Amino acid sequence: MASISVPALRDVATRLRIDSVASTSKAGSGHPTTCLSAADIMAAVFFAEMRYDPKNPQNPDNDRFVLSKGHAAPILYAAWAEAGLFPREELLNLRLFESDLEGHPTPRLPFVDVATGSLGQGICAAVGSALNARRTGSPYRTYALLGDGEMAEGSVWEAADSASYHKLDNLCAIVDVNALGQSQPTHLGHDLDRIAARWNAFGWKAIVVDGHDISDLLEGFDMARATSGRPTVLVAKTLKGKGLAAIEGKQAWHGKALKAGDEADEGIAELETALSNKGNAPAIQGPRGTGRVDRAADYNSMPAPAYKLGDLVATREAWGTALANVGRVDSRIVGLDADVKNSTFSDRFQKEFPERFYQMFIAEQVMVGAAMGLAARGAIPFASTFACFLSRAADFIRMAGISTLNIKLTGSHAGVSIGEDGPSQMALEDLALLRTVPNAVVLYPCDAVSTERLVAEMAQHQGMAYMRTSRPKTPVTYGPLDRFPIGGSKVLRESDKDEAMVVGAGVTVFEALKAYEQLKGEGIAIRVVDAYSVQPIDTVTLTTGAEAAKGVVITVEDHYSAGGLGDAVSEALAPAGVTVQRLAIRRIPRSGEPDELIEKFGISARNIVDAVKKSRQR
Amino acid sequence: MASISVPALRDVATRLRIDSVASTSKAGSGHPTTCLSAADIMAAVFFAEMRYDPKNPQNPDNDRFVLSKGHAAPILYAAWAEAGLFPREELLNLRLFESDLEGHPTPRLPFVDVATGSLGQGICAAVGSALNARRTGSPYRTYALLGDGEMAEGSVWEAADSASYHKLDNLCAIVDVNALGQSQPTHLGHDLDRIAARWNAFGWKAIVVDGHDISDLLEGFDMARATSGRPTVLVAKTLKGKGLAAIEGKQAWHGKALKAGDEADEGIAELETALSNKGNAPAIQGPRGTGRVDRAADYNSMPAPAYKLGDLVATREAWGTALANVGRVDSRIVGLDADVKNSTFSDRFQKEFPERFYQMFIAEQVMVGAAMGLAARGAIPFASTFACFLSRAADFIRMAGISTLNIKLTGSHAGVSIGEDGPSQMALEDLALLRTVPNAVVLYPCDAVSTERLVAEMAQHQGMAYMRTSRPKTPVTYGPLDRFPIGGSKVLRESDKDEAMVVGAGVTVFEALKAYEQLKGEGIAIRVVDAYSVQPIDTVTLTTGAEAAKGVVITVEDHYSAGGLGDAVSEALAPAGVTVQRLAIRRIPRSGEPDELIEKFGISARNIVDAVKKSRQR
Repeated sequence: MASISVPALRDVATRLRIDSVASTSKAGSGHPTTCLSAADIMAAVFFAEMRYDPKNPQNPDNDRFVLSKGHAAPILYAAWAEAGLFPREELLNLRLFESDLEGHPTPRLPFVDVATGSLGQGICAAVGSALNARRTGSPYRTYALLGDGEMAEGSVWEAADSASYHKLDNLCAIVDVNALGQSQPTHLGHDLDRIAARWNAFGWKAIVVDGHDISDLLEGFDMARATSGRPTVLVAKTLKGKGLAAIEGKQAWHGKALKAGDEADEGIAELETALSNKGNAPAIQGPRGTGRVDRAADYNSMPAPAYKLGDLVATREAWGTALANVGRVDSRIVGLDADVKNSTFSDRFQKEFPERFYQMFIAEQVMVGAAMGLAARGAIPFASTFACFLSRAADFIRMAGISTLNIKLTGSHAGVSIGEDGPSQMALEDLALLRTVPNAVVLYPCDAVSTERLVAEMAQHQGMAYMRTSRPKTPVTYGPLDRFPIGGSKVLRESDKDEAMVVGAGVTVFEALKAYEQLKGEGIAIRVVDAYSVQPIDTVTLTTGAEAAKGVVITVEDHYSAGGLGDAVSEALAPAGVTVQRLAIRRIPRSGEPDELIEKFGISARNIVDAVKKSRQR
Repeated sequence: MASISVPALRDVATRLRIDSVASTSKAGSGHPTTCLSAADIMAAVFFAEMRYDPKNPQNPDNDRFVLSKGHAAPILYAAWAEAGLFPREELLNLRLFESDLEGHPTPRLPFVDVATGSLGQGICAAVGSALNARRTGSPYRTYALLGDGEMAEGSVWEAADSASYHKLDNLCAIVDVNALGQSQPTHLGHDLDRIAARWNAFGWKAIVVDGHDISDLLEGFDMARATSGRPTVLVAKTLKGKGLAAIEGKQAWHGKALKAGDEADEGIAELETALSNKGNAPAIQGPRGTGRVDRAADYNSMPAPAYKLGDLVATREAWGTALANVGRVDSRIVGLDADVKNSTFSDRFQKEFPERFYQMFIAEQVMVGAAMGLAARGAIPFASTFACFLSRAADFIRMAGISTLNIKLTGSHAGVSIGEDGPSQMALEDLALLRTVPNAVVLYPCDAVSTERLVAEMAQHQGMAYMRTSRPKTPVTYGPLDRFPIGGSKVLRESDKDEAMVVGAGVTVFEALKAYEQLKGEGIAIRVVDAYSVQPIDTVTLTTGAEAAKGVVITVEDHYSAGGLGDAVSEALAPAGVTVQRLAIRRIPRSGEPDELIEKFGISARNIVDAVKKSRQR
């Protein structure tokens, strides 16, 4: 490190400050002051500490940088311009519709792994990025820059706990302790020792530094790199607005751009006085070495599902078996669990691939966040827990959607059909939650064969995919040659005199089949559709079926009415002028036996029969 | 405390163990082993430490107990039976549909403040309960029992941070460190010092105790009660399954009932051998004193909104003003902020009522969790942040719904209309999230007058209510005498030759009005409806309007298509045979100017005009 010129790095920091002020002033909005506090840290990280190819941000062995405090986006962009990835002038397009230099970073930019701007998430993704280095055997290190206000987010401590459990000494966080939140000072202020004590208690090595002293920062990074067996954090004392005397340490300046014109010009002029123009421009060093390159997988080599028609197998169990199956053909697949692996059956994957299975304990946010980081670096992560607890990570799922990441989520124990455990364990809003993510695939198989096929579809699909699995055992309904493309459906019963089309998914498919038998006995024919792909939904088959059934369509789902299967079918059939009657859960459920709850909350075969009969009386 | 007989308390613990085993065996499912580890703690808390009226669990000055590890429900029920609230025999109805003794506790039971069973939430509610004691000046203390696996949840550390910031020395947590999670040992095991270090670092006084030694527990509680200025936690070393030699400390026994018959009988017999039948039965002491009793409020005394038609006021700003207004007439109202009070305008409430305003910093989970605890104890909490960040608390909102708590949520900065900050700051799924909660009221006003009226409606409504507010300024549209009941809507334009009904809410109401003007110029009449109450939705007005508009209905919303306004209107109109065309956001948006984004993402006046014209060509 003898070649590093501290004055040159100080000049880099000053240029990053100038660019941050200039770009936000031009945009007329943004967060210059949080950039100014981070400028010396950014100069030290990007131009002395990190090893990467600045011309190829996606080099798999580059050190990674995650801007967990996403509102400091302008200085991230400035750093990459300074590194030579694109011309500095482009920074002035900040926040324009035509530019990818958005208000907060998104992976539209090649140097952004995960979208940030929802605080406390970047550090979770960084855990995934660090786990990935271990997976590929790459020597790359991962750096994450957090704000001090951000430490109030519990997800930061999930990440802290997980990183120390996984002994991620290739992970280095930096906390930019500028002591000012958005609306008031942070409650820990500049008490660096209290902050360090928290990280130390969570098993990290905390290093207190002066965040405006380049030499101190470099020394801190040296210590961090020399630490083995645990992650490190630089707790850096800074001033918000550093470099502009009138603004430094002032509360009122959060999220405020300097006014274009005199205010900005004078600010930039003040910053420019700090330029020394001494020392050589820092040279960025390339990656330390190379890791294993991921190979594409041959899913055609997978055997057909080996279940026997009529056998009783819970889809959650079939999912566990299927995950191990795809793990065998695709080495990129990794599993993440929140301490329910024996209920979701992800332990079947763990058993075969312990080194590709990450226990995240009861911490759903870092589970999904780490999956985001893993996916950004080429792994295909399957994160799973009870479906209701995925809602704990709803904001992460939202941001993973914005990041268009290739993550796979599975939620087991969906709906009232879990029975006695009661409403706290029943997911009844997961379909709605996942369906809000544009382009997210949402799957809800009813039997073991379709589950197995759909897990392979999920793995091969590029993008977010969610599977909902069920607790009760259900009969194997499909044969080994049946195929289940994403966006498809299965017509299980049909005739040329159907009086209604009943669309179910998961456990309600069997209620629909029971209703079919009963109605058949009374001379009433109905069409039964298994809408295993809730999103995208099979509009063509549904429209054809609705027409055949004279426009009488009934959806039935073990989910609340809002945003679920009924919503999906309603929107799909609206252009055909067909309305949908929804059977769904409409009250807070309670403990009871599965069949009892299905009946009492309105989604049983009897409820379907009643609905069909009522529709005939219209 | 000289009167307390330790042998008698040991016998209580044994009885609680027996009841936990008996009730779960009878039910055929449940978590006896996590009850067994907690039995001595429960005996000490309920029969020596806490002061309450066992015949009236809702006495406002009772000490509160929150079972954060909700899966230990059977021992909570056993404790209340032991305290004499109901006959012990009822415990054998555990998990039956007809019984309120559900698999996990819910406020169907009078001694449960908040539903638990999603780990890491009870401790957040306990923070709210402790804040409430301060609010009413009551000397009651709040106790929360956590599992050690639960500490992986980040929300626990949000609660820890918040409780120490608020100096809640009336809050005492107990961690039942039995060292076994569901699927494997916890990673901190029985390392009590490491666990204590984390709590100490977060500003608590941690007291390490033997969780099976009654005297040690009582001493710990004495120390806790004597601690001032900060919350306390007993870190209690225990064994899962304690009391049953064959099961004690065994991993395989999580969430497993002893088989009814020999297995259960032998277990109970083994437990019975521990009964000494020595010492007097412990006497429960009543509350320490009384706090202030909440008064009902007179909302009729509120003045009418004082806005001038056409003035430009953002609904978020009108919301802040309105919150201060209702705060003036109703002293039960409190505000909770996640460090964005100057953006949501909750600072207007804070300015007037600083003692009723709780800063929770950037920690949305504990913000909503504390609101749950406050609501359970009689406050009317308004928790607010950017709407997108409420998704961070999605699982808390789910559980608050199960708890049927009287909490009020407000999400500002909804939709693409926020502009340049980009997608991470744009709530586009909040309506779907809140609509999944049965009976939750979901409001989305378009102007200052309706906002002000609806805030008063929210405050008076008993149950969960959510308001979505917008960043851009919008014209005052309604007069001082207009009323906005929950479940209503406003028809803003209508004629007897309407060719379509356009239903908007919030910012899209103005796009609809612009479209109306443009189409009017072309001789096309449309009906424009402001669906300010998204849930419940005004089915009557919509059905009438749809019929008048010949069944052509277009919804337009600054929200994703799934689960939002379009879904609500679709379901409302389905019985009338009317389908809905939805204009909504369908791709991940990006930074840009608000008007530009509204146009590019398909919800502008021009998009509405196009949709209306296309519908005429059918």
